[in-house]
Amino acid sequence: MNHIILHPIGVIHSPYKENKDIPIQGRFKDDVEAWVELKDEYVNGLKDLDKFSHAILLYYFHKSDKENITGKPFLEDDEHGIFAIRSPNRPNHIGFSVVKIKRIQENKLYFTQVDIIEGTPLLDIKPYVKYFDSRDDVVSGWLDKHFKNGKIPDKTIIR
Amino acid sequence: MNHIILHPIGVIHSPYKENKDIPIQGRFKDDVEAWVELKDEYVNGLKDLDKFSHAILLYYFHKSDKENITGKPFLEDDEHGIFAIRSPNRPNHIGFSVVKIKRIQENKLYFTQVDIIEGTPLLDIKPYVKYFDSRDDVVSGWLDKHFKNGKIPDKTIIR
Repeated sequence: MNHIILHPIGVIHSPYKENKDIPIQGRFKDDVEAWVELKDEYVNGLKDLDKFSHAILLYYFHKSDKENITGKPFLEDDEHGIFAIRSPNRPNHIGFSVVKIKRIQENKLYFTQVDIIEGTPLLDIKPYVKYFDSRDDVVSGWLDKHFKNGKIPDKTIIR
Repeated sequence: MNHIILHPIGVIHSPYKENKDIPIQGRFKDDVEAWVELKDEYVNGLKDLDKFSHAILLYYFHKSDKENITGKPFLEDDEHGIFAIRSPNRPNHIGFSVVKIKRIQENKLYFTQVDIIEGTPLLDIKPYVKYFDSRDDVVSGWLDKHFKNGKIPDKTIIR
């Protein structure tokens, strides 16, 4: 398989109009609300998603035109492999976020825990299932030293 | 943005050659090992991923040619929206799995907690970060009744 063609199923609307002020992960700024605007033909796909507290959004990093193999993450100056960091400048430019569902109205899904920029093309929504997606005994490589005793680092907003 | 073109970065090799016997989620059958074979040009992207216990794999459901808007999940006969279930027969056919990293050797990443079929095109690898990807207070919609008191349902292997 040489290439795969995808078609966005909608667009993500966010109060973040530029990279500045976006948290590195939405979980670190819980009060901001954004929404997915789904194309009309997919509205029935949302049935029963409102019974879940969280969703997984897969989307396209449309502002990124670089495809790096290594990179320095926001939290430190050490170089890591692109598959060991969450940078958008990665092969295929697919973004992944866990978000908190607030409400669903027709073709709109409102959510918090936002780390996505305005106008981002949406590729998929999946229900976040704790039995599948949460893990115990997780070791998080170079990140663990930044979250000593579960403490959130000072530097989590892009400025 | 009308369409997006992706290029697989490698292929997933799995002992599961057909749907039969695949667990609905890899977490339910922990002893099976599979591996990612990454294209040579991406090998440096794996640097430091071996310091993580888990990874997120994004891949293409290449065996699925249906794009449904609703569907019946494996665990029950009720119809739900495609964005409230994890079926491969979904718009854009992107698969998502959390897997347990066993070891990395050159361009190969060996893992357990496998729910992926042999020959699957790989789109991305991300480090699983507990501070970003695990959530407390999760409500899992129609699935919660199948996991009463955290019990794994009898029917988790596709036969």
